[in-house]
Amino acid sequence: MALIVQKYGGTSVANLDKIRNVADRVIRAKEGGNNLVVVLSAMAGETDRLIGLANQASEGKPDDREYDALIATGEQVTVTLLALTLNRLGHKARSFLAHQVKIHTDRAHMKARILKVDTREIERELKKGHVVVVAGFQGVDTENHVTTLGRGGSDTSAVALAAALKADVCEIYTDVDGVYTTDPNLCRSARKLVKVSYDEMLEMASAGAKVLHPRSVELAKKYDVPIYVKSSFTDDEGTLVTKEDEEMEAVVVSGVTYDRDQAKVTVVHVPDRPGIAARLFTTLSDRNIPVDMIIQNASVEAFTDLSFTVSKKDMREVERLIGPVASDIGAQGVQYDQNISKVSIIGVGMRSHAGVASQMFAALAKEGINILMISTSEIKISCVIESKYTELAVMVLHETFGLDRK
Amino acid sequence: MALIVQKYGGTSVANLDKIRNVADRVIRAKEGGNNLVVVLSAMAGETDRLIGLANQASEGKPDDREYDALIATGEQVTVTLLALTLNRLGHKARSFLAHQVKIHTDRAHMKARILKVDTREIERELKKGHVVVVAGFQGVDTENHVTTLGRGGSDTSAVALAAALKADVCEIYTDVDGVYTTDPNLCRSARKLVKVSYDEMLEMASAGAKVLHPRSVELAKKYDVPIYVKSSFTDDEGTLVTKEDEEMEAVVVSGVTYDRDQAKVTVVHVPDRPGIAARLFTTLSDRNIPVDMIIQNASVEAFTDLSFTVSKKDMREVERLIGPVASDIGAQGVQYDQNISKVSIIGVGMRSHAGVASQMFAALAKEGINILMISTSEIKISCVIESKYTELAVMVLHETFGLDRK
Repeated sequence: MALIVQKYGGTSVANLDKIRNVADRVIRAKEGGNNLVVVLSAMAGETDRLIGLANQASEGKPDDREYDALIATGEQVTVTLLALTLNRLGHKARSFLAHQVKIHTDRAHMKARILKVDTREIERELKKGHVVVVAGFQGVDTENHVTTLGRGGSDTSAVALAAALKADVCEIYTDVDGVYTTDPNLCRSARKLVKVSYDEMLEMASAGAKVLHPRSVELAKKYDVPIYVKSSFTDDEGTLVTKEDEEMEAVVVSGVTYDRDQAKVTVVHVPDRPGIAARLFTTLSDRNIPVDMIIQNASVEAFTDLSFTVSKKDMREVERLIGPVASDIGAQGVQYDQNISKVSIIGVGMRSHAGVASQMFAALAKEGINILMISTSEIKISCVIESKYTELAVMVLHETFGLDRK
Repeated sequence: MALIVQKYGGTSVANLDKIRNVADRVIRAKEGGNNLVVVLSAMAGETDRLIGLANQASEGKPDDREYDALIATGEQVTVTLLALTLNRLGHKARSFLAHQVKIHTDRAHMKARILKVDTREIERELKKGHVVVVAGFQGVDTENHVTTLGRGGSDTSAVALAAALKADVCEIYTDVDGVYTTDPNLCRSARKLVKVSYDEMLEMASAGAKVLHPRSVELAKKYDVPIYVKSSFTDDEGTLVTKEDEEMEAVVVSGVTYDRDQAKVTVVHVPDRPGIAARLFTTLSDRNIPVDMIIQNASVEAFTDLSFTVSKKDMREVERLIGPVASDIGAQGVQYDQNISKVSIIGVGMRSHAGVASQMFAALAKEGINILMISTSEIKISCVIESKYTELAVMVLHETFGLDRK
């Protein structure tokens, strides 16, 4: 008898009809002879509504402990509604809130990390043959305060439960039906992947594909939990996110991703002295502004140019912060460019195949697409280009690496 | 420094504006030099909305454990919103859910009884000078399942907390501004009472006045917690519900109440044998149908008539149940009458004053109001009359016992 953890996102539990659909899926899996633990998000839009209330009540400065206790109610509603539905359909089900499981986290409200999951109560219910329904996104700290895990929190809850329970698989039901070689909305020849490795999935997430939150994939990798990504609205096969195997390594590039939400900042003619980069980036990290790519050219006559990319939404604050620092450190000036995007190719096979980068650059060059920045990891190559070429670049790379062919 | 428990009902926390009003009241009491524990209901209408969802999901037959965990979310929203508001206004506040306090109850879901309240966490917060905001209506059983206390539950939570914390007073803020000598909507000369005893309040509740739930009054009486009933929308003085004193005993009648939600059932010409009444009323209690007044006339030639009243909403089921039983026990027939109501006079002074009943009957007779049934307790006399005379009877009794005069 297999133990399956299933996780359904907000659009899959958006109303009672959809919760009924989820119940049907759960029952089908149960009747297939499996033990079931189901993790739910809040109804689509509900968490945002609660966040709105919190901000109104606190004039935009919510106490984080109260904020978390408020927004955690969304999941409490969906888990009890699913349990009610399952019970009505003749399948005994029990809902669990974080304090009932318990799911222990640290005290970092709004972005808590799971420290430990007690499985005793859940295992007792499973032994009775009951379906266990657990509220995602929430935890409790050592003082029994309610915490929440931040964006992607319910995926993380599901993987943590699967790890703690040594589940056979963690199925993540979402509104896309798997992981694709590239965005099917942009490129009609995109194919769904049967399998993808944890590392590839992580690079895809950081490169702009939003199927799974990176935290959940990291956790799955750490505890070797296979994740099966699947649509909750169709019966199509999904994509298995799992550890690398030989088959995967034979494929050089398994996906092309893009990210339009990038802006480029260049600090021009910076004195090439120790501590300059630290000074610049500490200014940003102190304000919690994530920096993605960083490029520093080789210095010419003790001066260098320093480029980096940030999220478009952070641009205004970056301008405010970087201007003064740049003049402080004796830079000539700062250039800002919002008309860029990042395209990336990803594949574990890159490690053992030479010439992938040059193949990528040549393909872009052939279409007259200028490369503004380059960054690479072991299994990823990213290029910043002018944003008007995004679609073209994606299609060209998709074809170049044979992703349009089975 | 006094310790005050304040409880606000659903209409007092119906939206963010009203929650802000509550915050202002709390702050005023706090700045008056008091320690504050605030108990809240869910936003008006929210519990009913959640009950609706539960019934839809379960097709009207909700699992009681899941039902309770669902409907308890309403209070979780209001307590965190009040805490957020208070914190924003510079008054450190902490919300507590039942599992955090903890408020221990028995396992009777939907109508759980409070067994014990742990006060350690709350006292720790109070010592720090913080305002404590507690979710009403909810508890946890020994297995940490969420329970709810049923109608009037938040009043009961507040009184239980006040008792456990040995609070100086439990203030209940509601949409009426105190306890009146009779319904001011029916009788313009109704006066607000400054003080009323627990027993009178209990009799008033059972006789149809809906200011406080009887369970909370019983609990307050048991632990001698003074309850101060007050409007959350005005600054008018309210009514203190407290233990009897000499002043109260000097007043013969302190209130006139009425209840239109009654229907009368008469089982006619019943053989006067042991076990007949038991047979009849067990049939009803087995279906959880509460019976209010029961009258059995002295038997004539081994036959008697047996009358009782039930709530109008239960009439259909009573007819279905009683018909067969009546023929079984050899009764001649059953008469049903929905055109009745009950008027009652209440006062602890009755105990030491003779002739109150006859004064009541005479006053009704003088207006040509026929009395259909009579029932009395130590401090209450109730008469069932034709419902068209309700208003007249209330006004006459109010005047007869001098309640329109200070």
